[in-house]
Amino acid sequence: MNPESDAARLRALMRKLCAMPPVAAMAPTALSLDPHTQVLRLHAPLDANMNDKGCAFGGSMNALMTLAAWARLTHLLECAGHAAEVYVQDSTIRYLQPLYGELVAEAWLDPGHDAGALVAAFAARGRARARLMARMRTGAGSEVATFEGRFVAKRPEAPPPGDD
Amino acid sequence: MNPESDAARLRALMRKLCAMPPVAAMAPTALSLDPHTQVLRLHAPLDANMNDKGCAFGGSMNALMTLAAWARLTHLLECAGHAAEVYVQDSTIRYLQPLYGELVAEAWLDPGHDAGALVAAFAARGRARARLMARMRTGAGSEVATFEGRFVAKRPEAPPPGDD
Repeated sequence: MNPESDAARLRALMRKLCAMPPVAAMAPTALSLDPHTQVLRLHAPLDANMNDKGCAFGGSMNALMTLAAWARLTHLLECAGHAAEVYVQDSTIRYLQPLYGELVAEAWLDPGHDAGALVAAFAARGRARARLMARMRTGAGSEVATFEGRFVAKRPEAPPPGDD
Repeated sequence: MNPESDAARLRALMRKLCAMPPVAAMAPTALSLDPHTQVLRLHAPLDANMNDKGCAFGGSMNALMTLAAWARLTHLLECAGHAAEVYVQDSTIRYLQPLYGELVAEAWLDPGHDAGALVAAFAARGRARARLMARMRTGAGSEVATFEGRFVAKRPEAPPPGDD
């Protein structure tokens, strides 16, 4: 682990996210990883993500939780030295109550996974599947939405021979 | 059924959608209801909804399918003369293949529901639950994503006495 380059990788992931027009429109402000819990957090302001009832738009909640989970798995593999293309396969979202404040998506690897074994499997096969969890909470800490998703990570394909 | 006012209701729903900043950012272009199949379609262009791989962003696909399902249920109740506030409770999305073209979310009431019975239940209790399905397809017709969601519709609360 190298905290400095891990932080640089988070900044690079944030730039990659914000380069996508529909993500830029959600105006995400910060991406961070808790060094103790390994929970990744992606923040976005309410005003860019408000529905007609003045609370957080469910589409933004889902997108931010999906992106946070995507970033968590991508960052895990990158910090172990592996470039990876990560895709979401399917997800289930539950909307529990309205959110009238900042959107903070928290994402983590399903505790049923061993992170080391996942990285080892990816290193061996150039491919791994993982389940990630995410949630969003009010400022006071009660859950407003929960997310479970299955992701697949693949080693990027090498360019075809002669394609340079 | 009054086709002219039903179409006006669709236009009003489209204005309501586009008034939300995160929906406006997806730049939806058209909302229509097939009079024979009762499938609702919500269209949006690829460029406003593109990910870093040049195809449709999963967050936009999910949001458009959720909105199409929301609009289908809202429109069904409005066309039967009922104002309703419709909320999504939970949903499951499967992403099947990348989409390199216009996003068209198609949504319909789960065939297990009888639309007439649903409207009657809402009229009687001021509340109803419904399952809606949605999908997105390539221009050639193969599915790129599927959606199932549970929604609840509630009669809008009357303003408190004296609040005028």
